[in-house]
Amino acid sequence: MTPFIAEIIGTAILILLGGGVVANVVLNKTIGNNSGWIVITTGWALAVYVAVVIAGPYSGAHINPAVTVAVAIAGKFPWADVPMYVLAQMIGAMIGSSAVWVTYKSHFEETEDADSKKAVFCTAPAIRNTFSNFFSEMIGTFVLIFTIFYFTNASITDTETMIGLGSLGALPVAFLVWSIGLSLGGTTGYAINPARDLGPRIMHAILPIKNKAKSDWSYAWIPVLGPLVGGAIAALSMLALS
Amino acid sequence: MTPFIAEIIGTAILILLGGGVVANVVLNKTIGNNSGWIVITTGWALAVYVAVVIAGPYSGAHINPAVTVAVAIAGKFPWADVPMYVLAQMIGAMIGSSAVWVTYKSHFEETEDADSKKAVFCTAPAIRNTFSNFFSEMIGTFVLIFTIFYFTNASITDTETMIGLGSLGALPVAFLVWSIGLSLGGTTGYAINPARDLGPRIMHAILPIKNKAKSDWSYAWIPVLGPLVGGAIAALSMLALS
Amino acid sequence: MTPFIAEIIGTAILILLGGGVVANVVLNKTIGNNSGWIVITTGWALAVYVAVVIAGPYSGAHINPAVTVAVAIAGKFPWADVPMYVLAQMIGAMIGSSAVWVTYKSHFEETEDADSKKAVFCTAPAIRNTFSNFFSEMIGTFVLIFTIFYFTNASITDTETMIGLGSLGALPVAFLVWSIGLSLGGTTGYAINPARDLGPRIMHAILPIKNKAKSDWSYAWIPVLGPLVGGAIAALSMLALS
Amino acid sequence: MTPFIAEIIGTAILILLGGGVVANVVLNKTIGNNSGWIVITTGWALAVYVAVVIAGPYSGAHINPAVTVAVAIAGKFPWADVPMYVLAQMIGAMIGSSAVWVTYKSHFEETEDADSKKAVFCTAPAIRNTFSNFFSEMIGTFVLIFTIFYFTNASITDTETMIGLGSLGALPVAFLVWSIGLSLGGTTGYAINPARDLGPRIMHAILPIKNKAKSDWSYAWIPVLGPLVGGAIAALSMLALS
Repeated sequence: MTPFIAEIIGTAILILLGGGVVANVVLNKTIGNNSGWIVITTGWALAVYVAVVIAGPYSGAHINPAVTVAVAIAGKFPWADVPMYVLAQMIGAMIGSSAVWVTYKSHFEETEDADSKKAVFCTAPAIRNTFSNFFSEMIGTFVLIFTIFYFTNASITDTETMIGLGSLGALPVAFLVWSIGLSLGGTTGYAINPARDLGPRIMHAILPIKNKAKSDWSYAWIPVLGPLVGGAIAALSMLALS
Repeated sequence: MTPFIAEIIGTAILILLGGGVVANVVLNKTIGNNSGWIVITTGWALAVYVAVVIAGPYSGAHINPAVTVAVAIAGKFPWADVPMYVLAQMIGAMIGSSAVWVTYKSHFEETEDADSKKAVFCTAPAIRNTFSNFFSEMIGTFVLIFTIFYFTNASITDTETMIGLGSLGALPVAFLVWSIGLSLGGTTGYAINPARDLGPRIMHAILPIKNKAKSDWSYAWIPVLGPLVGGAIAALSMLALS
Repeated sequence: MTPFIAEIIGTAILILLGGGVVANVVLNKTIGNNSGWIVITTGWALAVYVAVVIAGPYSGAHINPAVTVAVAIAGKFPWADVPMYVLAQMIGAMIGSSAVWVTYKSHFEETEDADSKKAVFCTAPAIRNTFSNFFSEMIGTFVLIFTIFYFTNASITDTETMIGLGSLGALPVAFLVWSIGLSLGGTTGYAINPARDLGPRIMHAILPIKNKAKSDWSYAWIPVLGPLVGGAIAALSMLALS
Repeated sequence: MTPFIAEIIGTAILILLGGGVVANVVLNKTIGNNSGWIVITTGWALAVYVAVVIAGPYSGAHINPAVTVAVAIAGKFPWADVPMYVLAQMIGAMIGSSAVWVTYKSHFEETEDADSKKAVFCTAPAIRNTFSNFFSEMIGTFVLIFTIFYFTNASITDTETMIGLGSLGALPVAFLVWSIGLSLGGTTGYAINPARDLGPRIMHAILPIKNKAKSDWSYAWIPVLGPLVGGAIAALSMLALS
């Protein structure tokens, strides 16, 4: 598996499972309907787990442009490969969110609330406030990427040690994402990943979803730029501290 | 323990604990009554964990005909042993679901809703739609088996490395099943295993359960064929990628 | 630490944390009031985790007479040490449940329902039925001890391998107890341990708890004998299979 | 990273994520509003996880004055370094709680209940009773620190073995804190850490939070002294037992 394919598959799996848990909780007549924040956050954490298990040994499982840019800033990843990784992540996210739509199609049709249908694809702030929303996405991604830099030897970019621990080596990043979701996800729904938000937002606009909401493009830049800035600050902080 | 016995015991434990958590949540007057999707999905994930801990070193802990067929397609398991494994899995599932019924018998008697009683045994779709339901079972099983192929070195079919990590080596597959349940289980209840659904469905038809529902045989082929097709696609995808 | 002291401390910690989570959920005005089955079962699983971390290297962390008797039947523990271990477990359970009472004393005083107060100490069946209740305790303990026998190399009685994995080596038994609670705990509240039920039941009778319920001695033999029989069957099954 | 910086950053991350999960659950209009005790306790446990992953290899990740004093009593940490560690922990806690306030500022403004706003910063007893509240904080911290002394080889103060297990080596202390929260947190909200309570309480008094509650200074000594006494007893118990 090439890194390009690995990032596509990894990000597609991430969004299939991450978007899937949101669909299960917010769409009508699902078995997991209205099962709460513990289900959403555990589902996203495990989505990261599965994606990293698959893609880790082949691409380092960035599955997130903010990670790719941050490790490039940190001097641990070639800048020349950044566009290829980001492209793969965007393609993967669009495939994954389309797969969620096909899987839960009957439930989309039974759901009247357009915002719930959009929530399966992309994030929206609980209270709209440009500075606060941007800060939330920035600090959540800062915690994500700063901590990854300090993973002792099971870094999502360090495949050598993942082999030593088997697929358990992908657990730390899952626990980390679980933490961020529970603690910092209450304001904007923790995109903390430009591809995770923008790719599905584009698919939401394209797919023939009945009675869908507008795509809220005026908000779309926040879960893109906030994570990139947060990741960059994490990389610079790590460099300053070492 | 022979592989045949290990698959019987492993699958029986899987269904005892998996059916048990459903009984606890859906039957009347149980202590865990109505405790939600987080309980159901955690219970099934841990049921897989316990089953794999027991059967792993003896049979590879397939405990699922879709796994057995997929690893045979992938060339990692002899086709000649497939019927013996599937037979053991069916026997185990029938034993396990019978044990759930005996354990929760007083609660079956206190439960009026026939569909709840059937739900302890086998899955049913939230919205009946042949294509969507089949697709759900197919994609859930695809994620299950595709990911298993990429377990770095704690594969459920790789007993050698399970010894290195102790019984922690069975955790990755449990986290994987937890993820699938949370994210993709909202439509059909994630059978993702022909034996898990068909074995208990047969027992539901046979056992003298009072005021029971019809067995819904017209649906029964979906949680059998969907997982088999999903597993086959996973095996072929893995082969194409390697 | 001698094995005797280790079993006292391990069982005291088990009951402090296990009884504590029940107190938190069922007593009035607690912060975790009415927080559900996921809290109860996660709390008990982690109570086992902490107890095994502490006592494991010193006594094997049986912390359960059914385990002690079962490993003796299996020929892996000297019969001569069984009374000493069981005595320590009973003393530990009585200390632990007393500590719960002191910790939550203000909340006991604010709770009118006598059965809730008793539930902090000992189990009670959801539906009273001698055969079913006995069977529940028996099968729950069977799963517990049968699986422990198949822990690859992180057995709660195998301290050597616990050192290799660090305190993570105590996780398998915690996940196992989590599973049993979620899946088989819905009928009788999964004592699955004679000391866990009888020790605190005695303390409930002795302690000056205001407006307390009767001790339900006619039920008390079930969570003692059921687990012992279940454990014995597990040991004999393991011997028959090896 | 020096130990001083590591303790500041570790404690800041602890309080950002720990205070964050409380904000998410108790403040108005958050996405995780009213999502319950399982969310609170899982969030705090993972907050400890992330903090220990980052600070562990640099300072031993005490992130708690009660830990620092207890390991000094146990003879495993120089008394001369205690003031520096405690100062760093207080600074970190004040930074972390300020970051929570900035992140959730819009939600603070939408929340009328002053006690909810204060709960994001510091603990308060469910039932006010000096002896009981002190005892709760003492016994919770006793369990925390006594168990840490018995971590086989992944001690939060033993960085050597953390390298062997990768960042998984920080999981035991997270599971331990999860357990204490679920089981012993129902009375006073388990500060079990003087810096975790006092640092944010000071910030609550200083920050320009609209319509805020009084700082409840008459209670403030309990989550400081209770943990210190509980940790000291844990250290002395460990010494007596070894």
